[in-house]
Amino acid sequence: MDIKIRRHLENPLIVPEDIKPSHEEFKVEGVFNAGAALHEGEVILLLRVAESVKSNEAGKVRIPVVHECSGSWETTTVLLDRHQKKNEYDFTDSRVVTKIDSQGNKYTRYITSLSHIRLARSRDGVHFRIEDKPFIYPESKYEAWGVEDPRVTQMGDWYYITCSVVSEYGVAVALFRTRDFKSHERLGIIFPPENKDVYLFPEKINGLYYAYHRPVPRDIGRPNMWVADSEDLIHWGNHRLLLSADSRSSWENGRVGGGAPPFKTEKGWIHIYHAADRNDRYCLGAFLTDSMHPDKILRKTRTPLLEPETDYEKYGFFNHVVFACGIICDGDKVRIYYGAADQRIALAEIELGELYRAFGL
Amino acid sequence: MDIKIRRHLENPLIVPEDIKPSHEEFKVEGVFNAGAALHEGEVILLLRVAESVKSNEAGKVRIPVVHECSGSWETTTVLLDRHQKKNEYDFTDSRVVTKIDSQGNKYTRYITSLSHIRLARSRDGVHFRIEDKPFIYPESKYEAWGVEDPRVTQMGDWYYITCSVVSEYGVAVALFRTRDFKSHERLGIIFPPENKDVYLFPEKINGLYYAYHRPVPRDIGRPNMWVADSEDLIHWGNHRLLLSADSRSSWENGRVGGGAPPFKTEKGWIHIYHAADRNDRYCLGAFLTDSMHPDKILRKTRTPLLEPETDYEKYGFFNHVVFACGIICDGDKVRIYYGAADQRIALAEIELGELYRAFGL
Repeated sequence: MDIKIRRHLENPLIVPEDIKPSHEEFKVEGVFNAGAALHEGEVILLLRVAESVKSNEAGKVRIPVVHECSGSWETTTVLLDRHQKKNEYDFTDSRVVTKIDSQGNKYTRYITSLSHIRLARSRDGVHFRIEDKPFIYPESKYEAWGVEDPRVTQMGDWYYITCSVVSEYGVAVALFRTRDFKSHERLGIIFPPENKDVYLFPEKINGLYYAYHRPVPRDIGRPNMWVADSEDLIHWGNHRLLLSADSRSSWENGRVGGGAPPFKTEKGWIHIYHAADRNDRYCLGAFLTDSMHPDKILRKTRTPLLEPETDYEKYGFFNHVVFACGIICDGDKVRIYYGAADQRIALAEIELGELYRAFGL
Repeated sequence: MDIKIRRHLENPLIVPEDIKPSHEEFKVEGVFNAGAALHEGEVILLLRVAESVKSNEAGKVRIPVVHECSGSWETTTVLLDRHQKKNEYDFTDSRVVTKIDSQGNKYTRYITSLSHIRLARSRDGVHFRIEDKPFIYPESKYEAWGVEDPRVTQMGDWYYITCSVVSEYGVAVALFRTRDFKSHERLGIIFPPENKDVYLFPEKINGLYYAYHRPVPRDIGRPNMWVADSEDLIHWGNHRLLLSADSRSSWENGRVGGGAPPFKTEKGWIHIYHAADRNDRYCLGAFLTDSMHPDKILRKTRTPLLEPETDYEKYGFFNHVVFACGIICDGDKVRIYYGAADQRIALAEIELGELYRAFGL
């Protein structure tokens, strides 16, 4: 089916050169996977800004991390020798430094960049003023390797932000909230490792809050989407499988995960999600859930809504990725802010009616 | 330090030959990792009974599973060809059938046995009458490959049972409860994949329930112990790291995980936990947590409390394992029921004062 989704003519909207590094010795590798919110007449993007260390000595790699020092959190670097035999680090994947464990399995020993959350503001949703300073910067032992992929859900005066937090203890999901996009509160780890791609529904359904999450099991099972409910947004339970990676599909046989928090329509909740194939090529799809039953998928796109096709989506910090964390609905117009090749922010627009058509409605 | 812990002279107390298979075509491979409860003057053990399929055709393996059929759950088998090139199954580990994925990593494709929970009752805590029928038998899509490693916590009239449930969707943790050890209720998945070794504290602390859990992250992080709290036993949050595998230790550098629900003493809560080294040799250790702060470990054993030394601990369905899920305290005497080599139930006894001494108290 040929779905009419339009890339914005000014794409990419935000690139690393637009971002002031958080530290002098840092270089911005990517600005991507932004959450989106409407606040006081502005579109606010919560940018994931990934920074690496500028000054690399020959044959060495410096890894940026935060660590605790006399009760406060400081940014520092870890120096790795590219040629040190003993450690046998693998630098093939630009995003990570991997090692082989005693069982012969590959695992991530470090992340090459440290991510924080930066704000960008816009009146028209296209041209953004980017703040000079981080909004959420890592400062706990669970965030020592970064805070990533924010999703924002407004409930009343509060904006709830779910982020992946990364450290040597794993990738967990933390909850933050803000009222003013000036300060924020940390509300703790809501999903333990390994989990990612968490977002909240913007209202209670049958008296309960709902979240989608995407556990990453080690031994048995695939990275599938699950649903959980809560009475207070802090404590989550009643975990149920929602959507599995489809081994028969060419574009979503690797993994699936939540995209942006859903928006409510007369047909139900519409969700934009991401799916990757076994080669880690990331596309966007959409599905529709029952308005009263968040665990019931009514319709789903069989082909990608958006796939990496332009140069800015195909080549970057990590190639062949479109990945959305934020959506703004303006009447019938749905604006999808998405990370392109883990390096830039781009915008795609689609009419609500076109999404219905994609669902065969 | 030489800690006086006594193996019972009648060890092993329960062996596979004592168990009536749940189906004619099944063979009991192991009875191990039992939860323990006191109920109406009896010690009740909740045995994990692992069964395989008896009738193996030459060169083939039959895997027992449950599957849904017209709304009810039926036990069936999956036939695997040991020599089929295309699938390249690996049968080296007696517990699982593994495969290599497209990234070259080994993962579990099937479990060779199907576990359920069986009850055994005793007046003296040593001689048990074993029921003929399963108490908890797999009957949901999350339990299709088995229900394992029960831990029991009594609160008021209710006994809460946490079990690992296994399926193609991963290893998750489900909560059950019973009042009479005749019928039980399913209360859903409380920790999504991959998680194991969950137990509940037997009382609220500062108005909250507490659980320990042991997530198994895939990419980053080790199998560490975490603590979470809850207001209703169903929804869990405030996840915090409790105890990491210690890479410098010879006996606990592989993984750590909760053992039996803790018991309260004048010094704090005492926990028996398990630790494995990088060769998957499982020992038991103990630690003490602050009576009001379940996330605060005050003391910990530096050497194993119990390690696989006897033949029944060294050789079995999986070699070199002692693994406890259940404890009964009788005055100053602590009875630790433990799985030996994933095949039998054994009993070790230790005085409370001896545990204090192990903590240097």
